[in-house]
Amino acid sequence: MNIQKPNIPKGTRDFGAIEMARRNYIFSTIRSVFALYGFQQLETPSMELISTLMGKYGEEGDKLLFRIQNSGEKAAEAPEKGLRYDLTVPFARYVVQHREEIQFPFRRYQIQPVWRADRPQKGRYREFYQCDVDVIGTSSLVSELELIQIVEEVYRRFGMRVCLHINNRKVLAGIAEVIGEPDKMMDITVAIDKLDKIGLDNVNKELSERGLNEKAIAKLQPILALSGSNEDKLNTIAQVLAGSETGTKGVAELREIFDLCRTAEVKLNIELDLTLARGLNYYTGAIFEVKALDVQMGSITGGGRYDNLTGIFGMPDVSGVGISFGADRIYDCLTELNLYPESMMDSTQVLFVTFGEAELRYALSWAKELRTQGIRVEVYPEPAKMKKQMGYADAKLIPFVAIVGGNEMESNTVMLKDMASGTQEALTIEQLVATLKK
Amino acid sequence: MNIQKPNIPKGTRDFGAIEMARRNYIFSTIRSVFALYGFQQLETPSMELISTLMGKYGEEGDKLLFRIQNSGEKAAEAPEKGLRYDLTVPFARYVVQHREEIQFPFRRYQIQPVWRADRPQKGRYREFYQCDVDVIGTSSLVSELELIQIVEEVYRRFGMRVCLHINNRKVLAGIAEVIGEPDKMMDITVAIDKLDKIGLDNVNKELSERGLNEKAIAKLQPILALSGSNEDKLNTIAQVLAGSETGTKGVAELREIFDLCRTAEVKLNIELDLTLARGLNYYTGAIFEVKALDVQMGSITGGGRYDNLTGIFGMPDVSGVGISFGADRIYDCLTELNLYPESMMDSTQVLFVTFGEAELRYALSWAKELRTQGIRVEVYPEPAKMKKQMGYADAKLIPFVAIVGGNEMESNTVMLKDMASGTQEALTIEQLVATLKK
Repeated sequence: MNIQKPNIPKGTRDFGAIEMARRNYIFSTIRSVFALYGFQQLETPSMELISTLMGKYGEEGDKLLFRIQNSGEKAAEAPEKGLRYDLTVPFARYVVQHREEIQFPFRRYQIQPVWRADRPQKGRYREFYQCDVDVIGTSSLVSELELIQIVEEVYRRFGMRVCLHINNRKVLAGIAEVIGEPDKMMDITVAIDKLDKIGLDNVNKELSERGLNEKAIAKLQPILALSGSNEDKLNTIAQVLAGSETGTKGVAELREIFDLCRTAEVKLNIELDLTLARGLNYYTGAIFEVKALDVQMGSITGGGRYDNLTGIFGMPDVSGVGISFGADRIYDCLTELNLYPESMMDSTQVLFVTFGEAELRYALSWAKELRTQGIRVEVYPEPAKMKKQMGYADAKLIPFVAIVGGNEMESNTVMLKDMASGTQEALTIEQLVATLKK
Repeated sequence: MNIQKPNIPKGTRDFGAIEMARRNYIFSTIRSVFALYGFQQLETPSMELISTLMGKYGEEGDKLLFRIQNSGEKAAEAPEKGLRYDLTVPFARYVVQHREEIQFPFRRYQIQPVWRADRPQKGRYREFYQCDVDVIGTSSLVSELELIQIVEEVYRRFGMRVCLHINNRKVLAGIAEVIGEPDKMMDITVAIDKLDKIGLDNVNKELSERGLNEKAIAKLQPILALSGSNEDKLNTIAQVLAGSETGTKGVAELREIFDLCRTAEVKLNIELDLTLARGLNYYTGAIFEVKALDVQMGSITGGGRYDNLTGIFGMPDVSGVGISFGADRIYDCLTELNLYPESMMDSTQVLFVTFGEAELRYALSWAKELRTQGIRVEVYPEPAKMKKQMGYADAKLIPFVAIVGGNEMESNTVMLKDMASGTQEALTIEQLVATLKK
């Protein structure tokens, strides 16, 4: 037999018991908040037709698609397939394909892995989970409010302090418009982003190097000097954008969102942040990013409004808004901040340790009774040496061991050992249940 | 813009809200039973190195592997990858790769999709979930008992009547051995399987056609006439197999498993079934299959003991036993038997319906309060026509609608309509919470 050294493809991961318990905690917390807002779960296939995926993520994205072939099938026989690259395009495809069955506004969430043939590096994997939540079929800004409330509640449950950065694509477009450089939107946001690091003079120099004329740079100065509360900032921006219909609409949307947040008593830190642009081309209104306040980590949640996501599949002019929680980064934050609850692990509560066939059978009877009481029980499956069985309990961090010997069988008890304190006492089954249920 | 008709690859499926709720119910039921027995969750990557997968599923299996290519990567640069074909080979790979971190006996479960390029047909998909549970690193038959107990408890929770068919590979090998036809094991089981349909004479005729001589067929007669209780059957088999060491060992294992089931008061229907062979080559001891009693459906759960699963990865002679629950078939059974609990859906409990901006804001405040009480709430995001909003609640089967008009705002109430009965009454927020929590 040819012996192989076992390994997995680079950029992929195995998740053992502790990682799975943590990941399940993250997913179930997020899911239960989504459900409070009436979002329902959707799952789409891991593979989509390659025609569904190609051209949706830019030239760079196309190169990062994983393509799938059947081993036994000739290429010509089967349409090409690829692994899901994100959850947004499959969602758009689903909405159009099932438009007759769906109630609009359609509220769905989706928690599934996606695959990208990126170069693997620290924190970047080729298979990772996204947790997306979207409302599609309404342009009401109440949906933006709800997503902000969801962010607030999810991180409240995690016990993490975060700040939500908000911007609006119409505002960015308006700025580019009023300074007469509609194509320079990205250059402007990149420059604003450097303000803290390199100072105003250097930013202006860089803007000039990027091809903005003096007049444009002059017009930008109030934007660069933006400070104060979100309202102060909005007032300044509103003045600058007075001449742009799009920009003025963007300001009005932001004002409305802030107003809705006051109505719903949102306590989350929200910061109007003009440096926030987000790369994806399909955003048309509000855009969001969430950052952790107590950990150095990039954006842990992000999204925005789009007005034509479903157009490519033949259903134009459907407005929607969505955000995506980055499970891997949230995992790293919670680990660094040590925020996982103790009750999260559903691991074994008690291990039965025995030294003979009769004792083993006695333990099996007790285990059956405990399990009907909802207690998670293991019986060491063979009467091995004491040291081996205790070592197993130790290594698996099982908190209690129930030892069964001749004396215990005679008195219809077990000797329960508390692995943390080392204390032990003889207990009847009723006493054992009571102790373990504490 | 090039408009595409949206579609998905053949053999794959989208799962909407109801399907997801049902699937989650199945998975969470199975998971919570696994946890009661101290099994912990493992997840492995969707893609494995092609060298891990090839040659493990026979020639036919190799042809059903989906291979993966990076779009932007030259074939020579990257090692070949393939989509997971089952959960057993990745489990074996994991055990060997992580042998230093694992506590043996290692108890793990794994609930993940697998992919096979089978020809799609009714009930057969190219992407489907498996729910595997295994103990590896002990040959104790207590593990067989535990898997039987898990089967009993899972189907008890589902409310399904099932029968567990049990056999032992050593018994099958022993029968082939004592009749002098060690290579004819499969022919014999196929023939026994036809006994009910074609009768003893025809079975004997068929055995002869399959190349068994008269003496061999004569020796088989007690096996073909097998009847009575499991114990009666075992006694007959024991006599036939007295000359075979392997066969006698198999009988002893079966007796031991039945005895352990009595100790643990297993109430499940268990039937010793010599026609049960299971195709996979790696089984060496007990083999199981579970069939529904009230639905026509193939095997819904199956597995067995293997003695050398990890050998190919360089870790020989590790005995284990496992079973796999077929989620898709269980789904179909529960649907046909109408066994899904009502409480399974975590869908919206109440929809707020409003007719103006002020009412919408009033509803947002109420919704916030209800959600802090754990109630799942939607607010229709825009003040649309009554008919449209009520139609939305109807189509989504939302049980209650809270209508907000000028009167309600003045009296600090909402008008709660019970969508099933059509009755409605004005409620304060405390009354509303109490009603919805009922």
